[in-house]
Amino acid sequence: MRAAYYEGNEKIRIGECQSVAPSSDQVQIRVSHCGLCGTDLHVFHGKMDFRVTFPQVMGHEMSGTIAAVGDGVAGFAPGDRVTVRPLDYCGACPACLAGHSHICQKLKFIGIDAPGALQGLWTVPAHTLHRLPDSLSLEQGALVEPVAVACHDVRLGEVKSGDYVVVQGGGPIGVLIALVAKSKGANVVISEVNPFRLKLAVELGLNAVNGRETDLVEFVNAQTGGAGADVVFEVSGSAAGAELMTKLPRTRGRIVVVAIFPEPPKIDLFRCFWRELRLCGARVYEAEDFEEAIRLAASGALPFERLITDVVPLERLEAGFREMERGGEVMKLLVRCSE
Amino acid sequence: MRAAYYEGNEKIRIGECQSVAPSSDQVQIRVSHCGLCGTDLHVFHGKMDFRVTFPQVMGHEMSGTIAAVGDGVAGFAPGDRVTVRPLDYCGACPACLAGHSHICQKLKFIGIDAPGALQGLWTVPAHTLHRLPDSLSLEQGALVEPVAVACHDVRLGEVKSGDYVVVQGGGPIGVLIALVAKSKGANVVISEVNPFRLKLAVELGLNAVNGRETDLVEFVNAQTGGAGADVVFEVSGSAAGAELMTKLPRTRGRIVVVAIFPEPPKIDLFRCFWRELRLCGARVYEAEDFEEAIRLAASGALPFERLITDVVPLERLEAGFREMERGGEVMKLLVRCSE
Repeated sequence: MRAAYYEGNEKIRIGECQSVAPSSDQVQIRVSHCGLCGTDLHVFHGKMDFRVTFPQVMGHEMSGTIAAVGDGVAGFAPGDRVTVRPLDYCGACPACLAGHSHICQKLKFIGIDAPGALQGLWTVPAHTLHRLPDSLSLEQGALVEPVAVACHDVRLGEVKSGDYVVVQGGGPIGVLIALVAKSKGANVVISEVNPFRLKLAVELGLNAVNGRETDLVEFVNAQTGGAGADVVFEVSGSAAGAELMTKLPRTRGRIVVVAIFPEPPKIDLFRCFWRELRLCGARVYEAEDFEEAIRLAASGALPFERLITDVVPLERLEAGFREMERGGEVMKLLVRCSE
Repeated sequence: MRAAYYEGNEKIRIGECQSVAPSSDQVQIRVSHCGLCGTDLHVFHGKMDFRVTFPQVMGHEMSGTIAAVGDGVAGFAPGDRVTVRPLDYCGACPACLAGHSHICQKLKFIGIDAPGALQGLWTVPAHTLHRLPDSLSLEQGALVEPVAVACHDVRLGEVKSGDYVVVQGGGPIGVLIALVAKSKGANVVISEVNPFRLKLAVELGLNAVNGRETDLVEFVNAQTGGAGADVVFEVSGSAAGAELMTKLPRTRGRIVVVAIFPEPPKIDLFRCFWRELRLCGARVYEAEDFEEAIRLAASGALPFERLITDVVPLERLEAGFREMERGGEVMKLLVRCSE
């Protein structure tokens, strides 16, 4: 078994996987597939060196088969097909005590603050496990985590059937938010500037507009009889997106901030006041979001085959990151971890 | 009867009031008292000349006695003591149709977009009336409107008993929000820098801190066991307030933007994301907020006598604005309109 080690300075070394025997409340998983996301690319670029321990194994969008279980683990056995909700919380801070353990004030995100899934054998706490149904392949199972992000965002956005929804940004999370919102009966438009992503969104049956060519405010007002959108998801992480997001919603409409803004952008608080807008931040997911993601994935409603751009061996991880940073014709890359 | 006419360029002329006979769905009120607020000062400073019609009668925080009613008006008669909810909506725009007529997309705010209450006789639509109970004096009745603002803000902030609440800004609206939140059983701290307002807040039984002397983030964290505030009301309208407001709430805590920000300030969207904060804008009020404000005022729970700094004749309106703009020892000024 091998593992991919991030050694800093955009260097990945493929080496021997260090098998960690599971303690009482842990399981060891033979990792099948692991997806790559923007956060992994961020780590690769050295932007999270203050959180990682070198050499770092990254990766957190995965599927696999249980190889061994600790003495105290009930309900799971070797051979079970699973995915992992990669959140390790303290259970004692004010956030945990208030029932928000997914955003624990001392949260360890497994794959950043602890070793991740880009290795053949991965040992994790049993409380992170979700069972994959037989109807999902292990390739598909590796997409449950990003789908759970989208389910969480759509839940916090309180999207209902008939809502008019705008998604700013057509990367993997933006497209998944659009697809999950559509599955709730919403009328969804996605705004993106990358031609490959625009084309893919259209092929997936989504209404997609090029934000550089279309005045989105005019478009949304025309589509909604001058009311504005019920919900806007800001997934672009751009200053333009932060400016646009307050112009689009109807009175008392909602804005869900999904993107990470390292620097505080200017926000039109006057518009928030004038239309009594409601803005919320949405981070990671809760157990119920994983369960909904698995249900939705198993229902066949999500076009996974179109979202997976390529499946590559562990040795091509660095090349995969290079492909992602070029921002070209790539949606989701999966890595085979235990071949 | 006289009226105060704003003629532009910070000029007020006191002249004869032009009595307007009420049409079928209107009433004519003999105005008793009218309070002055920051918006009136804004109009006086010429900042809203694009909305007013010269000469403009301003004023919208009032009490009075009905002098005459239109043919089609039911439920009100001459002699009734009333206050006015100064919102005239179209009833046909998407906001009205969605049940948000208080923020109608074509809203006329009476006192800015139509003649206001700083005159002896004032004619308004009957749908704007709220009856004042006998237990409220007409002086007190003129404070119902700003109390309704506070009731609206506290309602949108979903303040519950036991909540830890921070109010940024200790002017009339900030103090009223603090008092209304306290009446709900919340634990309230108010942050202000003006020594007169700080002293008054303390005398009103509020916890008040000087934001220039106390690190509010440290203070709130110490008071809440490291959790943070349940609700933050931003009433300061300052860049410092906009920066601070995201640092104070607990995970999933709420921020209510009450202040008017003419320029978009920088907002820490990362913090919104990280703690899944919920921000909403709150503007004016709805009928139920007026009813609650009247109930609360009639209960004797609000120390109106301490909030009213002075009661002056119409001739002293301009001097009153000068006193307000100096930002000195003034909380709420009332004007006698029909003596």
